[in-house]
Amino acid sequence: MNPYALLETINDPVDLRNLPEEQLGELAKQLREFIIEIVATKEGHLGASLGVVELTIALHYIFNTPDDLLVWDVGHQAYGHKILTGRRDQFHTNRQLNGISGFPKRAESVFDTFGTGHSSTSISSALGMAMASNLQGEKDKQHIAVIGDASIASGMAFEALNHAGVSQANLLIILNDNAIGIDPSVGALKEYLTQVKVDRKLAKNNIIRALNFDYSGPIDGHNLPRLLKELTRLKKKKGPKFLHIITTKGKGLRQAEQDQVRYHAPGKFDKNSGELIPKPQGNLPPKYQDVFGHTIVELAEQNQKIVGITPAMPTGSSLKYMMDKFPERAFDVGIAEQHAVTLAAGMATQGFHVFCNVYSTFLQRAYDQLIHDVALQRIPVIFCLDRAGLVGQDGATHHGVFDLAFLRCIPNLIIFAPRNEIELRNIMYTAQLGLSNPIAIRYPRGRGKNLDWKKPFSKIIIGKGEQLTSGDKIAVISVGTISENVTEAINLLPHDEKIAHYDLRFLAPLDTELLHEIFKKHQVIITLEDGVLKGGMGSAISEFTTEHQYNSQKVISLGVPEQFIEHGTVEELQQIVGIDANSIAKQLERFL
Amino acid sequence: MNPYALLETINDPVDLRNLPEEQLGELAKQLREFIIEIVATKEGHLGASLGVVELTIALHYIFNTPDDLLVWDVGHQAYGHKILTGRRDQFHTNRQLNGISGFPKRAESVFDTFGTGHSSTSISSALGMAMASNLQGEKDKQHIAVIGDASIASGMAFEALNHAGVSQANLLIILNDNAIGIDPSVGALKEYLTQVKVDRKLAKNNIIRALNFDYSGPIDGHNLPRLLKELTRLKKKKGPKFLHIITTKGKGLRQAEQDQVRYHAPGKFDKNSGELIPKPQGNLPPKYQDVFGHTIVELAEQNQKIVGITPAMPTGSSLKYMMDKFPERAFDVGIAEQHAVTLAAGMATQGFHVFCNVYSTFLQRAYDQLIHDVALQRIPVIFCLDRAGLVGQDGATHHGVFDLAFLRCIPNLIIFAPRNEIELRNIMYTAQLGLSNPIAIRYPRGRGKNLDWKKPFSKIIIGKGEQLTSGDKIAVISVGTISENVTEAINLLPHDEKIAHYDLRFLAPLDTELLHEIFKKHQVIITLEDGVLKGGMGSAISEFTTEHQYNSQKVISLGVPEQFIEHGTVEELQQIVGIDANSIAKQLERFL
Repeated sequence: MNPYALLETINDPVDLRNLPEEQLGELAKQLREFIIEIVATKEGHLGASLGVVELTIALHYIFNTPDDLLVWDVGHQAYGHKILTGRRDQFHTNRQLNGISGFPKRAESVFDTFGTGHSSTSISSALGMAMASNLQGEKDKQHIAVIGDASIASGMAFEALNHAGVSQANLLIILNDNAIGIDPSVGALKEYLTQVKVDRKLAKNNIIRALNFDYSGPIDGHNLPRLLKELTRLKKKKGPKFLHIITTKGKGLRQAEQDQVRYHAPGKFDKNSGELIPKPQGNLPPKYQDVFGHTIVELAEQNQKIVGITPAMPTGSSLKYMMDKFPERAFDVGIAEQHAVTLAAGMATQGFHVFCNVYSTFLQRAYDQLIHDVALQRIPVIFCLDRAGLVGQDGATHHGVFDLAFLRCIPNLIIFAPRNEIELRNIMYTAQLGLSNPIAIRYPRGRGKNLDWKKPFSKIIIGKGEQLTSGDKIAVISVGTISENVTEAINLLPHDEKIAHYDLRFLAPLDTELLHEIFKKHQVIITLEDGVLKGGMGSAISEFTTEHQYNSQKVISLGVPEQFIEHGTVEELQQIVGIDANSIAKQLERFL
Repeated sequence: MNPYALLETINDPVDLRNLPEEQLGELAKQLREFIIEIVATKEGHLGASLGVVELTIALHYIFNTPDDLLVWDVGHQAYGHKILTGRRDQFHTNRQLNGISGFPKRAESVFDTFGTGHSSTSISSALGMAMASNLQGEKDKQHIAVIGDASIASGMAFEALNHAGVSQANLLIILNDNAIGIDPSVGALKEYLTQVKVDRKLAKNNIIRALNFDYSGPIDGHNLPRLLKELTRLKKKKGPKFLHIITTKGKGLRQAEQDQVRYHAPGKFDKNSGELIPKPQGNLPPKYQDVFGHTIVELAEQNQKIVGITPAMPTGSSLKYMMDKFPERAFDVGIAEQHAVTLAAGMATQGFHVFCNVYSTFLQRAYDQLIHDVALQRIPVIFCLDRAGLVGQDGATHHGVFDLAFLRCIPNLIIFAPRNEIELRNIMYTAQLGLSNPIAIRYPRGRGKNLDWKKPFSKIIIGKGEQLTSGDKIAVISVGTISENVTEAINLLPHDEKIAHYDLRFLAPLDTELLHEIFKKHQVIITLEDGVLKGGMGSAISEFTTEHQYNSQKVISLGVPEQFIEHGTVEELQQIVGIDANSIAKQLERFL
């Protein structure tokens, strides 16, 4: 018997709305199993989507999507939405090159009203749509933002609530309260919401009501009849409304409910038992995240002044190791990048060596704080920018490719990209010895190449690049771990005596001494980075070239061109932008 | 008789703490008059400092500054603090070149524990200091953040509250509630705080308490004995505390109390009567702000799809004209840049032409939203970036010099800088005709040069630069209003037949056709911008130069070097960085 018989009749929410209400329970069961089956083998974000199966069905059943406009905050939870809105048969291509995106995406479907990926944008965007509908006289249209309890605690969401509460917009905010983001939620609002759940009196006179919303709930978000009834009621109400639902992340898969952090994006697992399928481990080199996580613990054991801060990524960044070992000196501040950076600055003014670990793409959220609160005051905060460069399947919203460009224009800031695990360790060691300026250390997602990475620390001289191989014609200048691709490219070619390879290491301060040496010795200079070309490292070399009038050299810059790069494996994406070993080798060949 | 006899005995808060409490009223009177007297002739921010005279005295009297750490949010209100902490005799140099800064500044005084200028950073930074004290075992030390009701509604402040509420830190947040920022405060929180002021029952069970703070107030912030008593009580309390005080912006100067927006920074006025001293008006060219403000009204009269959004700067940006004329289509969303940008994106998805007016320096607060919510989705929001370039006396925290560099690396984004008022009008006209991409339009603070600026609209071709004058040896490429300085420089020189002047207009997309023409015709290319050199327009030209191997030309880039630029007049600062007419002329002379 086809386990998805009912699900397969739903090719559009219109089909869903033609079902009798009694069948929705069965549909929820099939949708949940379908998600589990596909994600078990194709990987992706599991727990969040399992938690909103009933909500997803209820929303599309009650509201007239896509005319009524629905925004999923972050978008980890939108798999069910994708499956019910015409993408069931493509769902197995989720997050693969040329497949569907792991996040809502406007270009993919009219049901994806707003692309997401970074958190806490849903209320602002849905409010904008609702205000637009008001202006267009579409007074009955509804606009729905589904947001989790971790995301609603972020400043941007508060700004939007503060505005929405005094608007006349037909905005329905649904708080999907499961007490967890990727890691467990933190903060005073979360504590408060926890109280609201058990104290009906508190629920009657709460923060959300204070902000002028028509608050209802909390209700059980897995109780379909209850959800349907409440949404039917809210659909007819004008103005800003707020529904608080309680769900369980990972609902319907025992292990996912029990270990919500691991099952957020568990990799491959057995769809029946839920057991994780162990990856071939063997003796693998470490993840950069773990190099960071173990090294900060090692340093913190010696240096009492070391503190660690992460905005909501303790597991992803591996700061959790320090949180376990030194809970009084390592802090998860929630999805609050702006606060994290200025908090770090405040602590650093009092003599602490603060490691602030933020994903490269999320540092975009704290750009002003980096300029205004840190660099301008020359406060030596140590930024560890995780997931720099192309990140792979998370795609366009998550690539850390802008950092070199947006950091380079900030005065006083040291910018370093370690070539390997050992350099990451050594720059962390160097930074906690005390710097006179803030530093940004960027490194990629995933594993390094060295099994023997736990070497004794040695100090790195700030602003000094390094020559890796020598050659008399072409010089390749790379920055960061993309260096490996150069090494590989050179190995692919004959005449490697003609190719020199330099690791710039520091984008700022620039090692102008080394650059002069490079330009004096070589006819062709090729720059390579896993970041955008405009304004990035190659751009810095172009500036150097024109400033010092190196007119006889040919300068070629390789990196991410002027476009947003979609999802795929890192290797696929590197090929697309031409920074994989083969592409580099081809460039080199032209001049051999 | 010396009207400041008592004030002049206070050279340090220690002197203040030696006064008997009965004398503090007199001190408040003298401090208020001193601020009025100096600001009346030297200009600066008036209203905010007048509103916290009593609070300033009370804080330094009760707390042991600088050991207890005090952070002033934004810093507009810190004049009294500066005067009481050893800077009375320098206060007349406020905001002048080489004088004291108009904002708290760490390099200036040990009492300025954290530099401010942009809003809503005080809670994060003070919490960081408080957590540091905890770690250092300084359990009695107090840490105080003074923040206004407009600033506390910004997302970053909420993030900090959310963290502080669950911390053990000795943090005292003082909400200086005067119902106004630069313009009147907006939003649901403000409405709520207004209710709290009149409803003592509400005060007992409010939002702040919900976030786990020991809340007290609201109390009259001009009642010194009441303030002293309450601060004495709070000084002894551990953990996070929140004091709500009610003050009047401009307190003590009738006109400043009555017209709080105008007297925020009123320019020169009569210290006795409070009357503003009219500036020589005559028939002056318009401010760029007013060109924007009047033009958007003119366009909105014809085009129903035009909407305007500003995060808390209706007066400064002149969007107030549209708010007056079309209140249903123009929105002040409060100090909420992140929300403003994504709200604009949401509205634009529904077919509206949304003008989002943000000061260049404040767009740094919404960098991620610009990349992730706007450019990635190619939503054609129209950004008007006010106060781009060097802004003058507001200094390092306010210069809009990073925008060209941080915008240039974002794919899909059109970047335009009008050369004059007419071009600003025409690009606004062009944008509301409908673009397929978002656009950033940057223009400076202050007046243009054209009296006859209200010309009929004409459409600008996207991506096309312009030749202004021709010459056969040197080409100057400028972008934006700094073009004037080039014209002036050329006029200072003989042999102007050798100097061509081009206005690039669009930093993106680059007019490569024009650039090829320029490079083919000239031996020397000088680029000029009022923004940072690293990554900016000159950098784009360097990239072009190396990419197309223009090896025989000399390329020189003029702009803001790699350092933060302090306060002074725009003219003074242009001289310092070498982009005034004389400096440009000197550069040109070298090649004539």
